[in-house]
Amino acid sequence: MLVGPGEKLNEMVRDLGGPFDRLKIIPATEVVAMSESPVVAIRKKPDSSLRVAVEMMADGKVEAVISAGNTGAFVAAAMMYARRLRGVRRPAISVVFPTLHGPVVVIDVGANVQCKPAHLLQFGLMASIYAKAVFGVESPRVALLNIGSEDAKGGGAARQTHDLLGQSSLNFIGNVEGRDLFNGTCDVAVCDGFVGNIMLKVVEGMSGAMLEIVAEAAYKESKEFGDRLRPMLRNVARRHDYTEVGGAPLLGIDGICIISHGSSNARAICNAIKAASKYAGSHVNDLIVDSLGGSRKGRK
Amino acid sequence: MLVGPGEKLNEMVRDLGGPFDRLKIIPATEVVAMSESPVVAIRKKPDSSLRVAVEMMADGKVEAVISAGNTGAFVAAAMMYARRLRGVRRPAISVVFPTLHGPVVVIDVGANVQCKPAHLLQFGLMASIYAKAVFGVESPRVALLNIGSEDAKGGGAARQTHDLLGQSSLNFIGNVEGRDLFNGTCDVAVCDGFVGNIMLKVVEGMSGAMLEIVAEAAYKESKEFGDRLRPMLRNVARRHDYTEVGGAPLLGIDGICIISHGSSNARAICNAIKAASKYAGSHVNDLIVDSLGGSRKGRK
Repeated sequence: MLVGPGEKLNEMVRDLGGPFDRLKIIPATEVVAMSESPVVAIRKKPDSSLRVAVEMMADGKVEAVISAGNTGAFVAAAMMYARRLRGVRRPAISVVFPTLHGPVVVIDVGANVQCKPAHLLQFGLMASIYAKAVFGVESPRVALLNIGSEDAKGGGAARQTHDLLGQSSLNFIGNVEGRDLFNGTCDVAVCDGFVGNIMLKVVEGMSGAMLEIVAEAAYKESKEFGDRLRPMLRNVARRHDYTEVGGAPLLGIDGICIISHGSSNARAICNAIKAASKYAGSHVNDLIVDSLGGSRKGRK
Repeated sequence: MLVGPGEKLNEMVRDLGGPFDRLKIIPATEVVAMSESPVVAIRKKPDSSLRVAVEMMADGKVEAVISAGNTGAFVAAAMMYARRLRGVRRPAISVVFPTLHGPVVVIDVGANVQCKPAHLLQFGLMASIYAKAVFGVESPRVALLNIGSEDAKGGGAARQTHDLLGQSSLNFIGNVEGRDLFNGTCDVAVCDGFVGNIMLKVVEGMSGAMLEIVAEAAYKESKEFGDRLRPMLRNVARRHDYTEVGGAPLLGIDGICIISHGSSNARAICNAIKAASKYAGSHVNDLIVDSLGGSRKGRK
């Protein structure tokens, strides 16, 4: 189902040779702009596509919602109009970095600016289940992203989180530093949404910049060399772009919310749909509820 | 002057064809290991090279100290045994990212895990002076690293810092996101040492990983192509390695403390010496004291 401005969507579908049997258009008249304040926009616009889609999920009409719109508004809509999974205190956004050593799940990358140790513990738990169920990592090595690997590193909250994770049933390997996300040290890295969001965007900005620098250096050597290298670099960028992996799930919601990048193309959205399907098929949410000791039924 | 275990250093210098007229060896018998707790180690080892060197600086025997040792111990030694510049509340480590659009100074990358808005304001001020004096940026565009560019983004501390920076005499351009460090948006980015340290190490880890991925893809195409690309990638890595820029100064100390990377080679240390020299010649410290309204004389 495609939720949004009816006329416009119908027209676009016609342009693509539709209507199509398997595609249903659900009209939603209001739009949340990228720059709008999330909570305010979602409250004031009951007929925005984001809110309509999330409410359809809450009503059991769809299992998953995918959006490349305003991330904050998507998270706010999910928090306000869908249920949290029983036992989950704070839903969190997880993202997968495809590295040379396999996928690394980073959680939270922006849903929660400030987090308590108990929240971070749950993030680790949810991401560990996700890594195992969706990526097949047998016993995910969970780490706390910190400024040094020694146990006592970071402020008081980091130390408390370290202790909580250490006492949990998770395969907790301790603190890791930023560089350890790329060298195969861990499968899951836990951080608060402030650190995670800044880091995610650093990775994004740097990936583009590095490839540009390499291309420029190649063209400086010769046009032939640059032309030969460019498609390879594009390929590398695509294979290692976390948005290509299928979007970022908001873990902890009773339903499936997949956040796609604002600049997603058709393939990225298609990957997000596949990811949602895999997520549903691997029963991530049931496993999260089980591990938190609650029942499948969510709560408002 | 080379501070460290006398016998060993003398031997190394002899191996290099010394002794040399311009190189004096200052013996220090104790060693702070990379894994030691900084404050404890510095207190308990008065004859460690780090403490001896910092005390020489405090006594006016040298103007600058360069170390590739334990960063935390270096910062602790500087805080405990050197003076702060008058008016400076918290010294902070700044690092320069060489980007396609020129150098970007990031402050703090690890001296202060938790910071108040007033500290972050001073970081912006010190880094702005440093960017202008050492890198010749005329009116450095100072930004606050945050999770979105809107004024109200981040938690309460981020908002307060945003306001303080906005009311200051700095050329403050507002909040920036992680990706903006690489696209020419700002010349100085301010963050606390927790975020900055994680980010710095992400950049470090990712830079290596990206180049490895590109090299691997090239070798997959053909050995000839890989062999041709490899020296170019090495060159790119070196030119864009922040450690090559000459180390990271600890701004706010009455003296010059340059933190070099633990894996520094001869060229990196040589660049750090040049950076210290440029730092001294451009009177960064005097300018910091002037702008804070104090006099040159430091305080214990």
